[in-house]
Amino acid sequence: MKMDIRIERTQAPKEKPGKGADLPFGHIFTDHMLMVDYDKENGWHDARIVPFGPILMHPGSTIFHYGAGAFEGLKAYRKPDGSCQLFRPQENAKRMEKSIDRLCLPHMDADTILYLIESFVEFEQDWVPSEFGTSLYIRPFCFGCDEPIGLHGIQKAKFMIITCPVGNYYKEGLKPVKITIEEKDVRAVIGGTGDCKVGGNYAASNRAEHEAEVNGFTQVLWLDGVHRKYIEEVGSMNVMFKINGEVITPKLTGSVLPGITRKSAIAYLETMGYKVNERLVSAEEIVEAVKNGTLEEAWGTGTAAVVSPIGVLHYEGVDYKINNNEIGPVCQELYNGLTGIQWGRTEDKFGWTVPVPAPAK
Amino acid sequence: MKMDIRIERTQAPKEKPGKGADLPFGHIFTDHMLMVDYDKENGWHDARIVPFGPILMHPGSTIFHYGAGAFEGLKAYRKPDGSCQLFRPQENAKRMEKSIDRLCLPHMDADTILYLIESFVEFEQDWVPSEFGTSLYIRPFCFGCDEPIGLHGIQKAKFMIITCPVGNYYKEGLKPVKITIEEKDVRAVIGGTGDCKVGGNYAASNRAEHEAEVNGFTQVLWLDGVHRKYIEEVGSMNVMFKINGEVITPKLTGSVLPGITRKSAIAYLETMGYKVNERLVSAEEIVEAVKNGTLEEAWGTGTAAVVSPIGVLHYEGVDYKINNNEIGPVCQELYNGLTGIQWGRTEDKFGWTVPVPAPAK
Repeated sequence: MKMDIRIERTQAPKEKPGKGADLPFGHIFTDHMLMVDYDKENGWHDARIVPFGPILMHPGSTIFHYGAGAFEGLKAYRKPDGSCQLFRPQENAKRMEKSIDRLCLPHMDADTILYLIESFVEFEQDWVPSEFGTSLYIRPFCFGCDEPIGLHGIQKAKFMIITCPVGNYYKEGLKPVKITIEEKDVRAVIGGTGDCKVGGNYAASNRAEHEAEVNGFTQVLWLDGVHRKYIEEVGSMNVMFKINGEVITPKLTGSVLPGITRKSAIAYLETMGYKVNERLVSAEEIVEAVKNGTLEEAWGTGTAAVVSPIGVLHYEGVDYKINNNEIGPVCQELYNGLTGIQWGRTEDKFGWTVPVPAPAK
Repeated sequence: MKMDIRIERTQAPKEKPGKGADLPFGHIFTDHMLMVDYDKENGWHDARIVPFGPILMHPGSTIFHYGAGAFEGLKAYRKPDGSCQLFRPQENAKRMEKSIDRLCLPHMDADTILYLIESFVEFEQDWVPSEFGTSLYIRPFCFGCDEPIGLHGIQKAKFMIITCPVGNYYKEGLKPVKITIEEKDVRAVIGGTGDCKVGGNYAASNRAEHEAEVNGFTQVLWLDGVHRKYIEEVGSMNVMFKINGEVITPKLTGSVLPGITRKSAIAYLETMGYKVNERLVSAEEIVEAVKNGTLEEAWGTGTAAVVSPIGVLHYEGVDYKINNNEIGPVCQELYNGLTGIQWGRTEDKFGWTVPVPAPAK
C-alpha cells in the first residue's frame, strides 16, 4: 500500500565514504531515516523521511520493558553499470509482517513495508557504495511505544528504517569460521518466537555468543529447545551440510528463522544439481559424518556473509575439522553464484533482484 | 555499593493525586526519574535523579533491535503511622542482577541496585499514596544502548528507575479471575530466559494474552515448552493449588520466574500450617483434581495483585470451575496476611519490610 511520505532533507549532509574506505558493519549511518507512527486513533500515519538523529522516547515505552520489537535486514547493491538493486525485498517485507503480527505490534502489511523500504532506498541511494562486496545495509524495525507500563495490547508504535554503508564481510576473500554447538543455553523453542526476527531471540543468545567468542569461536550453533539434539541455526545464519554428496539443511520446524539467503541457496543449489534435503539433523549425526569421512562441506547462509564456510565445529569438548578447514567447491560456487546475482555481475535467472529507480534529478 | 547521586529537582512539580483518586496501573508517573549510564571507559557512572521526561535515544540503540532489556517491579507502601516501607527489595535487586547478567548487559551488583532503589524511593516518597491497597509502584529497568547495529557485546547501557502511584488492584475486594491454559504459544523454555525478568518473555506472550482477553479470560496460564504439559506460571503471577489439603506450586525448573510474592507466600503458608510442595504439576492433574473434587482452591501470587483467586480454569475447550468460583479460605487468609505486612497493618515477624527513612526536611 502506498503512503504519502513527507520529506525533510538534512541541512548538514555528511561526507560519503570514498572507495576503499573501512566500513565496519553497522557503524556509519546515512543522512536520513524513515519513520512512521502508529496510534489507535490514526492508525499508521505521518510517514516521513527526516535527518538521521536521536529520537525522543517516553521512559515508559513498551520497548524498554516488554521487548516488543521486530526487525529486518537486507541490502542494496550497486551494479557495474552504476544502478542499484535490492535482493528479494518482498521476502523481507513478508517476514516482517509476520514478526510484527507475532508480537501483536500494530499490523502493517507486507506491501506497505516493501513500499517504505523501496521508497527510502530510492531516496538514499547515493549512499550505496560501489565496490563488489560492499553494500547499503537496510534495517527496518518496529517497536511498541505505549507510555503506561501496565501489560496490555500495544496501542502506540513506531516503524523506522535506518541504513548503513557496509564493507565486504570477507576483506581477504571467503574464510572458514569456527562454530561451537551450544549445550547449555537455548535460543528458541517451538511455540515461541524463533521463526520470527524479534529482539528476544537475540537477547536470549547473548550469553552463549559471548562465551563462544571468549573461547575463540566465531559464533554459536543452536540446538532445538525440546530435545536439545537437533541443529537449528547459527543466530545470524542458517546452516547447510553436504554429506555423502547430498546437501542437507535443518527443516523449518517453527523455531528456526526462515532465512531468505537459505531459501535462495536452496533454489540456487537446485540449478547446481543438488536437491536440498530439509529435515531434522542431529548434532550426533554431523559428528558421526565427520568421523566416518562423509561430511564433505558445511556452511552458513545469511544476509551479512551471504555464504560462510564452516571450518571447525566444536561439540562436547571436541573440535571437529570439516573439509580440512578449507573452503569446499559447492560452498564456493554457491557464494559466487549468489553474490554474482546480488551485485549484478551475473544474470538473474530467478527474478530475485528489484531495480532501484534512478534518482529523479 | 553506594554511588554519588546527582540531583536536579523539577521546576514544575505535578499535583499529587488526592485520596480516592483513580490510579490506573502505570499511567501516572512521579516528578522525577533516576538514571545511570554505562560505557566501556567509565563503567556505570553519572547516577542522577532528574525531572521525569522523555530521553534521547540513538536509532541504532541495542534495545530497539536486539531486545536486551531487563526490569523489576516492586512497591513502596505507606503505613498507618504515615511512614513508608519497601517489601523485600533485596530480592528484587538480586533477581535484577541475575537478569542483567543473563542478557550480558553490563554487570551491576545487587547491592548497587538496592541502593539506587532505596535512594530514589526516599527522594520521591511524598508520592506514596496513603490508602490501604494503594502504593507507589517502582520500576527499575536496564537496557543496551550501543549505537552500531552489529551484533556484539553490549558496551553502552542505561539503568533507570521510574515510579507510579497505583490504586488498589481490587477496588471491590478480592475477586476470582478466569484463566485459560495456553495450548499453542510458549512463553519460555529451560535454557532460555524464562527465569529472568526480561522483555523477550513478555513479547513472546503478547499473542496468547491478546487471544485470551478476546475470549473473556483475564490471563493465560503457560505450559512448559518441552513437554507442553506441566504448568509454569501466569505471565504476571506464579500459581498455587490446594489439592486434598496440600498446597502445591510448580517448581522452579529454570523456565519459571522465581516470584518474590511466591517465595513469601510459601513462607507465610508454612506459618499457617501448610508445607508447600514445589513439584511438577501437569494440567491433566489439575483437571483430574477438579473432576474428582479434590481441587479445593487455586490462586496466583504476584506483586501487582499480591494474591489472586482463580475461579475458572479453561483447558482444551472446557471451563473448569474452582471452589464454585468463590474465594477460598486459604487464599483469603494468605492475602490478608501478606497485605497486612506490606501495608504495615500487622507485625512483620519475617523481617521482610525495609523502612524508607523519613524525608530529610
